[in-house]
Amino acid sequence: MTTLQHLHSSELAAWLETHQAEAFDLWQKERLVTPLHVTFDTPLALENGDVLPSFEIRLELYGQINPQRDNVILVCHALTGDAHLAGKHHVDDKKSGWWDDLVGEGKAFNSQTHAILCTHVLGGCNGSTGPESTNPQTQDAYHTSFPPITIADMVNAQHAVMQALEISQWHAVVGGSMGGFQALEWGIRYPNAMKKLVIIASGACYSTQGIAFNAVGRHAIMHDPQWKQGLYQTHGTEPRQGLATARMLAHITYVSEDSLDQKFGRSLIEGQSTLPTQSSEAGTSFQPEFQVESYLDYQGQQFVNRFDANSYLYLSKALDAFDVVASWGKGDLKTAMARIKADCFFVAYDTDGLFPPKETHRLVDALIALNQSPSAVTLSTPWGHDAFLIDTTELNAIVPAFLYEATRELSKKHNTPLLNRDDLAPLLSLVEAHDSVLDLGCGKGDLLEILKAQGTHPRLLGVEQKEASVKDALNKGLPVLQGDMLHTLKQLPDASFDVAVLHLALQSLQDPYRVLQEMKRVATRSVIGFPNFGFLPIRLQLLLRGRMPNSSALPYMWYDTPNIHLFTLKDFTTLSEELGFQQARRVYRFGETWQARPRRAWGVNWRASYAIYELV
Amino acid sequence: MTTLQHLHSSELAAWLETHQAEAFDLWQKERLVTPLHVTFDTPLALENGDVLPSFEIRLELYGQINPQRDNVILVCHALTGDAHLAGKHHVDDKKSGWWDDLVGEGKAFNSQTHAILCTHVLGGCNGSTGPESTNPQTQDAYHTSFPPITIADMVNAQHAVMQALEISQWHAVVGGSMGGFQALEWGIRYPNAMKKLVIIASGACYSTQGIAFNAVGRHAIMHDPQWKQGLYQTHGTEPRQGLATARMLAHITYVSEDSLDQKFGRSLIEGQSTLPTQSSEAGTSFQPEFQVESYLDYQGQQFVNRFDANSYLYLSKALDAFDVVASWGKGDLKTAMARIKADCFFVAYDTDGLFPPKETHRLVDALIALNQSPSAVTLSTPWGHDAFLIDTTELNAIVPAFLYEATRELSKKHNTPLLNRDDLAPLLSLVEAHDSVLDLGCGKGDLLEILKAQGTHPRLLGVEQKEASVKDALNKGLPVLQGDMLHTLKQLPDASFDVAVLHLALQSLQDPYRVLQEMKRVATRSVIGFPNFGFLPIRLQLLLRGRMPNSSALPYMWYDTPNIHLFTLKDFTTLSEELGFQQARRVYRFGETWQARPRRAWGVNWRASYAIYELV
Repeated sequence: MTTLQHLHSSELAAWLETHQAEAFDLWQKERLVTPLHVTFDTPLALENGDVLPSFEIRLELYGQINPQRDNVILVCHALTGDAHLAGKHHVDDKKSGWWDDLVGEGKAFNSQTHAILCTHVLGGCNGSTGPESTNPQTQDAYHTSFPPITIADMVNAQHAVMQALEISQWHAVVGGSMGGFQALEWGIRYPNAMKKLVIIASGACYSTQGIAFNAVGRHAIMHDPQWKQGLYQTHGTEPRQGLATARMLAHITYVSEDSLDQKFGRSLIEGQSTLPTQSSEAGTSFQPEFQVESYLDYQGQQFVNRFDANSYLYLSKALDAFDVVASWGKGDLKTAMARIKADCFFVAYDTDGLFPPKETHRLVDALIALNQSPSAVTLSTPWGHDAFLIDTTELNAIVPAFLYEATRELSKKHNTPLLNRDDLAPLLSLVEAHDSVLDLGCGKGDLLEILKAQGTHPRLLGVEQKEASVKDALNKGLPVLQGDMLHTLKQLPDASFDVAVLHLALQSLQDPYRVLQEMKRVATRSVIGFPNFGFLPIRLQLLLRGRMPNSSALPYMWYDTPNIHLFTLKDFTTLSEELGFQQARRVYRFGETWQARPRRAWGVNWRASYAIYELV
Repeated sequence: MTTLQHLHSSELAAWLETHQAEAFDLWQKERLVTPLHVTFDTPLALENGDVLPSFEIRLELYGQINPQRDNVILVCHALTGDAHLAGKHHVDDKKSGWWDDLVGEGKAFNSQTHAILCTHVLGGCNGSTGPESTNPQTQDAYHTSFPPITIADMVNAQHAVMQALEISQWHAVVGGSMGGFQALEWGIRYPNAMKKLVIIASGACYSTQGIAFNAVGRHAIMHDPQWKQGLYQTHGTEPRQGLATARMLAHITYVSEDSLDQKFGRSLIEGQSTLPTQSSEAGTSFQPEFQVESYLDYQGQQFVNRFDANSYLYLSKALDAFDVVASWGKGDLKTAMARIKADCFFVAYDTDGLFPPKETHRLVDALIALNQSPSAVTLSTPWGHDAFLIDTTELNAIVPAFLYEATRELSKKHNTPLLNRDDLAPLLSLVEAHDSVLDLGCGKGDLLEILKAQGTHPRLLGVEQKEASVKDALNKGLPVLQGDMLHTLKQLPDASFDVAVLHLALQSLQDPYRVLQEMKRVATRSVIGFPNFGFLPIRLQLLLRGRMPNSSALPYMWYDTPNIHLFTLKDFTTLSEELGFQQARRVYRFGETWQARPRRAWGVNWRASYAIYELV
């Protein structure tokens, strides 16, 4: 069992130096963690102009801070989370911390090599200073005289912790949902304070619908007669029903419609029927009959036992008010995002209704419009927004690749896979040593992996639609965006890259014309590899056999081929001219060998089975 | 100005005979409508076993009931609607009825030719008997001693109106949302009581998420201390705040996330700021700051002025309990839907979160699995569920085609467009006079229109993806399903049709193999027309010019063609054999002429530019 340690902020760094080895030992052996309660008697200036004369922060640390103090990962929690990220305080605790599955060796947050820090937010009700804390000036609880708190205020309080720990740069700042807001604010407000940012199931602001749901929750709390303008006494006379209503409502927005349906459907509570067979006693017929109703009731009642209504009001207002476009961008998201210096990784969930993938992608699009190379993935999940808390396997599978250099840096020993990529050689011959490269349809990142190993390319970025391939590429430590090729191209500024590569994909695109047009705008040179439908054996197969041709370059049957837009070298030339391209270098495949543009170019349209064109 | 007419149910038919001409005159001249209040002193047996000894129904009628009494359209209203469908009671009324735009000449509900009836639901609070009505046995308001009401009870009360009007069959029953539930219950419970059913933005039951939101709304009402177990006195001491919370919440689910965003975004209420610059007075910082908040507040306050909290509880419970699978299907939707005899038309909205299109399509799929020929369309709208109340232009554009035989029956005079369809002649030559025909990718319904005009085909059904084409086909009075071809095929039982036609579409399908496979299962014969990529000029274009061919049958450029799976006659033959088809009749296009299978079939693969195959 661990006991809460009360420390003054000035003692924090020294206390850890003395105790963190012992605490780590306990963590390793029994996954027990020691919560720390740190008092800052330095004033904290808030965004609204008020000043908190002093404040307290609850925090937990997993792993050991190294002597260089450069291995700390700050994890920011969501609306109803707290500092208790993982493990237990007592071996008999029923539940572990809220992201327990993510902390440990080989997990997203590797406590063997890194120190994972989680601090409870300002304005909350689980240890850090909030509306139910005692106002040192009056010795009464603040209640609603507590000043309005913003996401920036939470970050500034965390920044005070960072200073107390004598850390100049986090290894990373990570957060989901409201935690993602904090991570984003960190990246913009303190651009040099972290190497990496991981933003999960979050966005640039809360949606209008999100604000609307928050407003209804607040309406329920504030019209509970027990709220009493916020001056209720805790323990007994809180506005329990109003807070329960707010929570029940919010809970619906955290889970996907399908997951509710799969989990409960129309199942009734045992003994209940939707058609009472006799007149009900007054009111009883409105009691929960469906399991989903009693589940929500339970969620509401559980929540009021652990959360404070005023804190809920303050934090929900902080969510609504957060808006980096307004506070940092003067109305423009790019202006805000331009401040970020950290490497960024974004995770969205396809069924998230609170932060739909398109909200996360506004952040991604802003960064690539700024010639940054963020990574991003949209994970498939049945769970909706709560997936970031539930689908921890997925996060453990992809976050380490992004977070830890050891994994990201291509080991020189990894030569074996590279050796077997002869077929990439002709493509590589058109990429110069110092080119920045955009690989469209990068698959598992084979080409980018080689380019990265060359170590000379100032910027590499992959774009890939398939989730599994994106994960493989991420696991090679490559920056890769999951998404539609054309959409991504449209976000990129003119001449963002030296080279854009499109290998073996043009014939399978819905709109090859627009993609080539955008490549021309975005890259100085375009390198495009494709099978030649004009290859003589193909023509002859069609002519003589009267059948759609098959070949090694076109191996599919006509009815299940992804190659939906077939074309010949001549067709390609015509289109590239129409788009205003000049053809520069070309490499052809004749039989089993590759050959740079032959002196006599005549006949390539029937001689080449495959071609790679450099267009400028 | 009109005055509410109090009538006994036995007087209703006679009163209308005497007064409807005069009332219609007023309607035509000033769009004024006379509300009727009808007392039934016959007992009404409720689904739960209780009996209402007497009950009252508020209703409105637009147009005149004809002597045959077969021109009446019953419109069922949604949760918070009422009998006041259209027009005004007084010229100075600020607002017209809730579906005003839909009633009138040339509108969805043509009051010139038909009599449109709307009755207020049992359990409601706008005229018909409900929880705040006086219990005749106690002379007190029922409050929560009112028995639980179901959708079936509402329908049975409407059925009593039908009997009082001496109507044996409605022309149609129409409803959206909860009104759609009533229409569906009508179709299943009283299969002979209507010719047509129109079900809009509705489904077979409320979703789990819908129940969950309702549960939160009820929680808010029932935990408002003013609710007092439902025994509150109206006018002054109702549970206003609880009901407002419920309404605010429900309102969010009625509108799409995008429409909220477009309408309000993050706009602030004038004078408000999300970052107060000074310490707020206790509690004031939680007041609405965003426009969407004050909008919701307004919605909530408006609602409590016109709606009763107990009614809301009763009706929301009726929504939750409705489930035709349980009540009519013994667990199987098809069993329930098999009772329906009416012609059905379903309208879904793409952004509807409360009844997503897939919910409506469960009903459609059940009907086609039963070899019925419903029509269905999914309309694009920014508005979400409320589109059925807002996007009235769309409904006026498509509902009349379905509702009125005059439009649906192909006039013999409509010969002109038919004459210009020579290109359909070869296809028609493979369809026998008494074939039932499924037209896959029916476009605007050109083929089906001709077949319908022949008047000999027992069943015709079109499937089309494009919304605009579906509307055109509906306006020709054809039964047409908007949806994915493969999905629709999968719902159809074995051998549902004599002929399935796939004309000019196979080469543009994502998965031609599966579509052909399903056609074989679903139809006795398949008729498939397609351009032949083996046509000699095409082969020679590729061989000699080294370019992807263009021809009248393949007019697109390679990079923007919808023809993504090109194939030759031989390719097609191989695939059809692989699928176990036998080739029966064939028609080829040679040059400008069509020819049935030539005696010498040799050489067709290079001679024919286009072919139509009959497969069995």
